[in-house]
Amino acid sequence: MKETAFDEFYGLQFEDLEIGMTAAYGRTVTHADILMFSGVSGDTNPVHLNEELASASMFGGCIAHGMLAASYISTVFGTKLPGPGSIYLSQTLKFTAPVRVSETVVARVTVKALNPEKRKAMFDTVCTVGETVVLKGEAEIMVPKRD
Amino acid sequence: MKETAFDEFYGLQFEDLEIGMTAAYGRTVTHADILMFSGVSGDTNPVHLNEELASASMFGGCIAHGMLAASYISTVFGTKLPGPGSIYLSQTLKFTAPVRVSETVVARVTVKALNPEKRKAMFDTVCTVGETVVLKGEAEIMVPKRD
Amino acid sequence: MKETAFDEFYGLQFEDLEIGMTAAYGRTVTHADILMFSGVSGDTNPVHLNEELASASMFGGCIAHGMLAASYISTVFGTKLPGPGSIYLSQTLKFTAPVRVSETVVARVTVKALNPEKRKAMFDTVCTVGETVVLKGEAEIMVPKRD
Amino acid sequence: MKETAFDEFYGLQFEDLEIGMTAAYGRTVTHADILMFSGVSGDTNPVHLNEELASASMFGGCIAHGMLAASYISTVFGTKLPGPGSIYLSQTLKFTAPVRVSETVVARVTVKALNPEKRKAMFDTVCTVGETVVLKGEAEIMVPKRD
Repeated sequence: MKETAFDEFYGLQFEDLEIGMTAAYGRTVTHADILMFSGVSGDTNPVHLNEELASASMFGGCIAHGMLAASYISTVFGTKLPGPGSIYLSQTLKFTAPVRVSETVVARVTVKALNPEKRKAMFDTVCTVGETVVLKGEAEIMVPKRD
Repeated sequence: MKETAFDEFYGLQFEDLEIGMTAAYGRTVTHADILMFSGVSGDTNPVHLNEELASASMFGGCIAHGMLAASYISTVFGTKLPGPGSIYLSQTLKFTAPVRVSETVVARVTVKALNPEKRKAMFDTVCTVGETVVLKGEAEIMVPKRD
Repeated sequence: MKETAFDEFYGLQFEDLEIGMTAAYGRTVTHADILMFSGVSGDTNPVHLNEELASASMFGGCIAHGMLAASYISTVFGTKLPGPGSIYLSQTLKFTAPVRVSETVVARVTVKALNPEKRKAMFDTVCTVGETVVLKGEAEIMVPKRD
Repeated sequence: MKETAFDEFYGLQFEDLEIGMTAAYGRTVTHADILMFSGVSGDTNPVHLNEELASASMFGGCIAHGMLAASYISTVFGTKLPGPGSIYLSQTLKFTAPVRVSETVVARVTVKALNPEKRKAMFDTVCTVGETVVLKGEAEIMVPKRD
């Protein structure tokens, strides 16, 4: 990825993008993250907050909100590739495996197509824990042009 | 005790669902919500946190993370319809308008199709601010059966 | 849509209540919960936050704030029985045992008397960790009527 | 109040207490406090978090959780009078008025009776916003003795 093109306030411009460019954000999910996400979302489903009940479930313990992992994808778009100034148009999400407490999620986005007329970039988006894919999908981002 | 179909810990079962059933979650987005979502997601894009910069943008001020509104959809699934015990399989998201500080988002989900063999329910999902649709899509949820 | 007595925004009405109705909220208390409660309450008593000192106390380690367990009772009233629209009039609390980090508290409320003229419902309220009662008391709630 | 008797780790001892001794904790309730309390308690009643709905209620806008004000009473006991080392035995709470966003609550406790044999101190407890009493009750605290 072209380092210097990235402006700390405005991010990459459409002209900076190339198919195959990629960026990632990694984050360990603690009980504190799950607690905070429960508060900010309002999702107090006991599978996230009640260890006693979650242990008896098919998950064997508390798991993270799927949308918490999804938010890490958004973080890559908003802070790295393309970064500030881009506009999130759409995202598809397939939740393929649970994320457990103390696991580290890596969210990665990769440019898969570019539409210069509409200034739109299509991305493959995937979240993994080790080798396991926990979330995958595609996103469409509108990116400002220089000219 | 007076039993309702909704169990306090386990939510609705597949047999309780009917096409057209709907539930909603409403939430006002404050600066505190945006700060907390920035912290928990890691998305520190200045359009969410830097009022000076955001005021000069096309949005005219700080806006919420799109995934914050998306998380409210997840909240309806995890706490109301179908509630605890259901499994989030997939979600599509089209971000159609920004959510500004102090606006109240209402996330609503509605059963649109049921597949009893696979215990899957398809939902229409929409977030609105007043009359404006800010986010829409579809979701697929796996719901436990009684038998 | 299939209507249940519980309205997503307004909760149960006085006419829906019967003596013996009960609801519960279960929650595992992590260090993160205790930290957050310390921050939001301002109660920075070292027995909650200083493991070194708390280990040397009669509790043998950090314990949760009593009011954290009490807040779970309020959660049942505010979200389940009777739910939104009800007004909390009074609560008595007897703290009968400490709650330690990683323990799961179940707060349960049960209708014990109804006063239709004043639209007041009296509840028995109890918090348990496994078989141990950690908090008990009574509460009085005003509940809106349909007519 | 005797300043020097208060140990930063262990608080006042029973012998330090006198009828009429008093201490207070003041705190402004912001949206952020309410959001955090919602997360840590799990109480996502819309009267606390949905300004649109709360504005249409008898309260005219979002109000704080009653247990948030109650937690400030606990804060005085745990950090000031008697401070660390004391044990919370019981508390009665009458919620007499709502606390609105941006209001400053002052929680005050006053020694009203002392039982040296059982090392118990009885307190009057009151929370005010300006001249308005929003919460009142009584508490019983066990306090360690020097000898």
